[in-house]
This record gives sequence, structure tokens and C-alpha cells, in this order.
Amino acid sequence: MSKTWSVEEHLEDILRSIRPLDPIELNLLDAQGCTLVDDVIVPAALPPFDNSSMDGYAVRTADVEGASEEFPAVLSVIGDIAAGSADELTVGSGEAARIMTGAPLPPGAEAVVPVEWTDGGTGGGPADSMPAHSDAPEGATGQVRVHRPVHPRQHVRAKGSDVKPGTVALKAGTVLGPAQVGLLAAIGRGTATVRPRPRVVVLSTGSELVAPGEPLGPGQIHDANSFVLTAAAREAGAIPYRVGAVADDAETLRATIEDQLIRADLVVTSGGVSVGAYDVVKEALSRVDAFRGGEEDRMDAVADPVEFRRLAMQPGKPQGFGLIGPDRTPILTLPGNPVSAYVSFELFVRPALRTLMGRQPVRRRTVRARLAGDDALSSPEGKRQFLRGDYTPPGEEDETGTVRAVGGAGSHLIAALAQANALIDIPEKTGRLAPGDEVTVVPLD
Amino acid sequence: MSKTWSVEEHLEDILRSIRPLDPIELNLLDAQGCTLVDDVIVPAALPPFDNSSMDGYAVRTADVEGASEEFPAVLSVIGDIAAGSADELTVGSGEAARIMTGAPLPPGAEAVVPVEWTDGGTGGGPADSMPAHSDAPEGATGQVRVHRPVHPRQHVRAKGSDVKPGTVALKAGTVLGPAQVGLLAAIGRGTATVRPRPRVVVLSTGSELVAPGEPLGPGQIHDANSFVLTAAAREAGAIPYRVGAVADDAETLRATIEDQLIRADLVVTSGGVSVGAYDVVKEALSRVDAFRGGEEDRMDAVADPVEFRRLAMQPGKPQGFGLIGPDRTPILTLPGNPVSAYVSFELFVRPALRTLMGRQPVRRRTVRARLAGDDALSSPEGKRQFLRGDYTPPGEEDETGTVRAVGGAGSHLIAALAQANALIDIPEKTGRLAPGDEVTVVPLD
Repeated sequence: MSKTWSVEEHLEDILRSIRPLDPIELNLLDAQGCTLVDDVIVPAALPPFDNSSMDGYAVRTADVEGASEEFPAVLSVIGDIAAGSADELTVGSGEAARIMTGAPLPPGAEAVVPVEWTDGGTGGGPADSMPAHSDAPEGATGQVRVHRPVHPRQHVRAKGSDVKPGTVALKAGTVLGPAQVGLLAAIGRGTATVRPRPRVVVLSTGSELVAPGEPLGPGQIHDANSFVLTAAAREAGAIPYRVGAVADDAETLRATIEDQLIRADLVVTSGGVSVGAYDVVKEALSRVDAFRGGEEDRMDAVADPVEFRRLAMQPGKPQGFGLIGPDRTPILTLPGNPVSAYVSFELFVRPALRTLMGRQPVRRRTVRARLAGDDALSSPEGKRQFLRGDYTPPGEEDETGTVRAVGGAGSHLIAALAQANALIDIPEKTGRLAPGDEVTVVPLD
Repeated sequence: MSKTWSVEEHLEDILRSIRPLDPIELNLLDAQGCTLVDDVIVPAALPPFDNSSMDGYAVRTADVEGASEEFPAVLSVIGDIAAGSADELTVGSGEAARIMTGAPLPPGAEAVVPVEWTDGGTGGGPADSMPAHSDAPEGATGQVRVHRPVHPRQHVRAKGSDVKPGTVALKAGTVLGPAQVGLLAAIGRGTATVRPRPRVVVLSTGSELVAPGEPLGPGQIHDANSFVLTAAAREAGAIPYRVGAVADDAETLRATIEDQLIRADLVVTSGGVSVGAYDVVKEALSRVDAFRGGEEDRMDAVADPVEFRRLAMQPGKPQGFGLIGPDRTPILTLPGNPVSAYVSFELFVRPALRTLMGRQPVRRRTVRARLAGDDALSSPEGKRQFLRGDYTPPGEEDETGTVRAVGGAGSHLIAALAQANALIDIPEKTGRLAPGDEVTVVPLD
């Protein structure tokens, strides 16, 4: 009997063989969800100039000292400074420039009085807004009564107060979410150098498989795995290509995979990896010469054959991993039961994809939770078992979350999988778990 | 002074006016992340027939009763049953059919003996696998020695044991993740009827805005908002169309929005909603006739003007909401500071998008956490404040999570926003928070 691998040994072997994808420069929005390769340095101050944080009047503070509603300071309005305006107005003694939020503080001015602290140039009581310039251009002239004093720099955002040139805006390894995309845009970066999303070719194998929507003949079932794995790859951030189901014929499978390699950063198959006489993935890929292609000059570029293993785990015992073709493309061959395939994806493919994307951590977080429900769970000793669970996080009353097993251990119970939001991770040595016991849970969120 | 709205009043007004999008039938993988409109009923049993859960031999249990390695039961192998095979083999007394995982249990057989419990037809010791049929077709004939008995139905998955016809596979309202997509495929559904992803037109306004990557002139800044909001809309599950920055001209803005309405389920703008003289969004959209288009026969189809409001919140005081154009398309007009725009997206646009998608809950979850850091936080009384925070969930030692404010209250601090993973939600009545105080936190995950 060959060696039985632990889950961790198999995963570590995969991760040891996989390198992050080469960086690529992408337009900012195409880089969303990707990982920065280098620190991004701020090229220039943000904001690039002192500017107003309010709609109001740019003034000299001495001119409004002691101003009140009863005894307003009366200033001459010398014009408008709109955001984006490049006009050169200088505010002198006894003068005010009407200024909009974000507009540059004009020379001479020391602070901004919000429009609500003035009469808005109307000669009446306190204003609550300015009339639109296009309707009332006269607002940019005349007089304004200021009802409250301001101190120097009040309602002014200083140049460089958001970020200073030469500082690190975002560190290498940062994942670009909306706020990070926004910061890059704000500092003028139209592109970002990131690890691209990996392209994942997904195929299921089995002569019994029929596409959903097509009628079933005797002995046939619908192909679920290529859909589960494609959706899971996309959810993990990859760009999946679903090839669909390939019949149990080694030469067809080999040729299909070889054709697909051109667009694959990683290949995932399901089925055909166990101990049966028709286990076509094993048959097609375990040969040393599977991807040599017969050409002498490609001989050096080819990779090791795929290694098929028995893991001390349930579900998901039969697994395979290798690097194939001239680019040594990683291939993970998962078992064919839908639940086994999905659990295997979570445990092995997702960390592989996150490694390709340069994302940390590559593993999902785990939490501890109390086992809920009325029944004890049994687990085969010597095997690490992953049951499907319905996890409830800690709440107001519970300081620990709870988890309930759904659907039992059967690896074909895809209906139960669809009700689960977590995996319950039961160690190899544990044979039995009673309600109330603490267990390790992997939330699938 | 007009009324000041609370955050909840504004949100409730928006949600009252928005209905989920009409359902559409999509191919299964296109429906990923969408919400089912109806219960999906299982049309036929899954699995559709009794089948083997192992690679092995289909036998009559009486024939292997008492079998052991020392005294094996010897059976005649009558052929192979591969998965997907439609052959009609019947297992008689003293006979065995070699059977693969997933293949239909043949008539006459009552259970399956795994290949590991036999000699695999080799005449030697216990087998650990079957030779590939293509290499060794003789494995489908000859004799097999069985080393262990099996009980009736052992290693057989019963027809309908995963799902039974007529039961509910997935309930209306279910979001289709990988496992749910898999279940629909497994029961033969090639499509799903779901709420589509909303199409969101995003535009920022401001004559000072320049696209990232372009050089800045005097008084200009780079447009961050259209990028933040586009990325946030996509992350929320929508299909965003980034129009980019529109100059502060009411007619241009009105025409741009009118052009875009054809592809919009929702419109989001930023900037131009405050009390300034160049607040173009307010100017363009607050007119009752803004989207009447001048045609008499469209008069009945048009909607209310957009209503601009002052909210008791910081950042994000000036907000607008309305239903525009012939389809009464919702428009949310957000303030122009990047942090205000982002916080407003989280509080108002995201719940609106989730309503359009039929997703529950529409609001993000909140948690309680202890305020970390050395400094007390002050908050303007009478305003609900949303600070940016760095949240650490409960750990092994901490039963409550902690949160640290990042970057202060300045609404222009997009650099700090990019370091935050949560919002700290400080109620209107709270003026001061000391380190160690419990606060409400909205994790942005």
C-alpha cells in the first residue's frame, strides 16, 4: 500500500509548487479585487492646494473679528471662486470672495466663512444656501454681511493634509477594494500593477454525465460538478472557463486538457481519480509521457506526471496534483462526488488560487463553535472529516457560536450542501462528538 | 429652515420607493450571486437510480456470507458496469459484476463489495485498485475472491436518497452560491429565474475633476468618486457603468443623465448637492420639469423632482433622492467629498441595490466592539457620525472585538478610508467616547 497523505501534507505539497502569477498593469477598475505587487508611493500632495471645506466666503480673519448677527462685518464681494476655477482673485482688506467647497483658497484670504454664517449677500437674515450662479450672477458681486468670526485656517483643508508626496499610499500585497481604488484614483493613478485573476479551466469527467436541461437516459445523471467548481472558482476571484463534461476515454481527456492549457493558469478536473477500472483521469495523467506531446524539442520543458494520492480525509479521499505541459501548469484532480469535489475545492483549489493571486491568508479563517442539535456525531478514526454545517455566529447572549450538522456524512448529499454555510472540521483522532462539544468550523463566507 | 432628516428617515424613504427588479430567466452560471424568485421543486429523484458508492463488485449478500481472507467467497465475474452504462447485466447466484462508483446497481445484486475487500480478480492478496479496463479488459471476466461479507444495501446509494421528487430544493429568496448552483445543475435545471443584477450608472460632477492618469491644471484634482462608487457598486453585486466626471453645467448634466437612463436601473451621482452657487446636480434636478422631456404624451409617465435634503449625519449631510424619467428610475445624489460619497454609498445606495436584487438583509450587519487607542473621540451632538475604523473581531482572549478610529473625522481623508475595514457608528446623542467604551461597528466585509 502506498502512503496515505494528511490534508495538510497534500495542501503543502500543492502550495510549495505554485508561484504567484506574473504582475500585469491593469486599468484601475479592472484591477479591483486584485493584489498590488509593489508599494504605491504618493507622487504629489493631496489635496494639491489649500482649499475650502465649505460653500461660503474667503476672508481675512481681521475683517470679521467680533462680527455678530447684531453687528455684522460688511465686506465687498469681489467675485466667485468655483471648484476647478483657475481665476486669479486676491482678497484684500475689507473684501471677500464667494468660494465653493473644494475651490482653491485665494491669495490674501486666511479662512472661509460658511454661507450659513452670513446673509448670503441678500441684505436679509442668515442664509441657508447660495442662489445658483446661473440664475443669479449678481451674487458674485455687491456686499455680504458676516455674522460670526473665523480663526485663521478655519474651514480650509491644507495642501497635503490627506496624503503627502513620497509617503506610501498602499503597501504591496494590498487587495484593491473600492476605497483603495478610490485612493489610487485620487493620487492620479489610472492603472495599477497587480497579480491578475487566474484563469481556471474546469472540466468534469464521466460517461454518465449529461448537461442540465438535457433529458437523462438510463444510468445517466446531470453534471453538477463543472457548475459547482466554476461558480466556486469565480467566487474565489478567478476567471473560470467551464469546459463541461468529458466522457471516460483517456485519449479524449488528454487531448481536451492539452487544448485547454493555452488559456489555463490552473486546471481543475472532477471524477476519475479513484480505484476503478474506468478512472480516466488517473489513466490519462499518471503516465510519465502524458504531456510530452512526442516532440523531441519539448522534452525538457515538460513536467512530472500527475501524482495520485489517497488522503486521510472524508469526503475527498482520492486526490491528484501535478504540473503539466510546457508551462508546468498546475492541475488538481478532484474526486467525482459533488460534495467531495466541493470540499476538495475549498481545501485545496481555493488556497492554490489565492497563492496565484498573491492573496493572504490562503486558507479560510476558522472559528470555534459549540455543536448544536440532539444527536452525537460519529467520525471515522484516522480520517479528518469535513461535515457540512449550519453555523450561527456569536450573538448578544452567546459568546461562542453554534453549529449544526446538516445532511450527514454521505458525500453525494448535494441537497444538504446547499443548506450549509460552513464546514465542520473534525480531527483524525476524534471518533465522536456530543451536542455541546466545541468544534472547529470553517465559515464559507 | 427646512427639516433635517435622520439617516433612518432618509433610508426608509428610499427603500419605500424602490421595488425589486422584474425576474429574468438566466443560464445557471449567469445567475450566480442572484436571488431566486420562486421555490424550486425537485422534478425527479436524485440519484435517479440505486447506484454504487464504491468501485467494487455487485453481489448477492448470501454469496459472500462468512467470507474472509482465509476462506474467500469465489464468484464468477460476468462483466463491467461502468458509470453511464446502459447495459443490462443481471447478477445471479455465485456471480459478481464489476461495478464503478455511480454506476447503477444491476438487477439481482443486493450490495457492493469494495475492490479493497477482494483480490481484484488477480488470484493474489487484497487489491488496492482495479487495473484500467482499457489496459486489462480481462478484469471484467474470470473469478474474484471476496474477503469480507456485506450486508444488504451496503455501499449502495438509494434512488432519491439525496432529494425526492416534489420536495423544495431551494426556497424563493435563496442567493445562488456555488453549492446552490450545483444543486440546480444536479436536479437538471440549466437555467434559474432570478432577480437580475441592477445596472448602475455612476457619474461624478465637478469642473475641477480630471481623470486619473491625466495631468492636473491649477485648481484641479483627480476624480476619485466615480471610481470608488463604481467599484463599490460592483462589489455590492451590481453591473456598474462608470460615465466619469461631468462639468458643472446644468444642461450638460441633465442631458447626460437623460442619455444614460436607457441602461440604468439606478443612477448615482456625486457632488453638486450642497448649498453652493455652482451645485449643479441640485440645480439640474430640483426643477419639477427636469425630466419631462417637453413631450405632452410623456407627461403622465414622469416622476417627482429629486428632493434635496439635509441629514443629521457626518460626513454626508447633503443628500438627494428621487425617481426620474419615464421609468421612474431611482437616483441617489451623494455629496462630493470622496469619504462622504463612500459612506453615503454604504448607508443608502447599497441597501437600495440589495432591494433591487431582492436580497435580505438590505443593511449590513453591525457588531459591538470596544474602542481601542489612547484618545477619546468627540462627535458633534445632534449628528450621527460615521468614523472610519480598523476593526479586530473577537479572538481567543477577547470576547468582544475592538475597533480603532483611523484618520479622524475629515471627510476628505481618503487615505485613511483606504486603511479602514469598518465604520464606527456614533449615535446623534453621543458627544464623546473614551477608550474602552463600547461602540457600534459596521464591518465592511
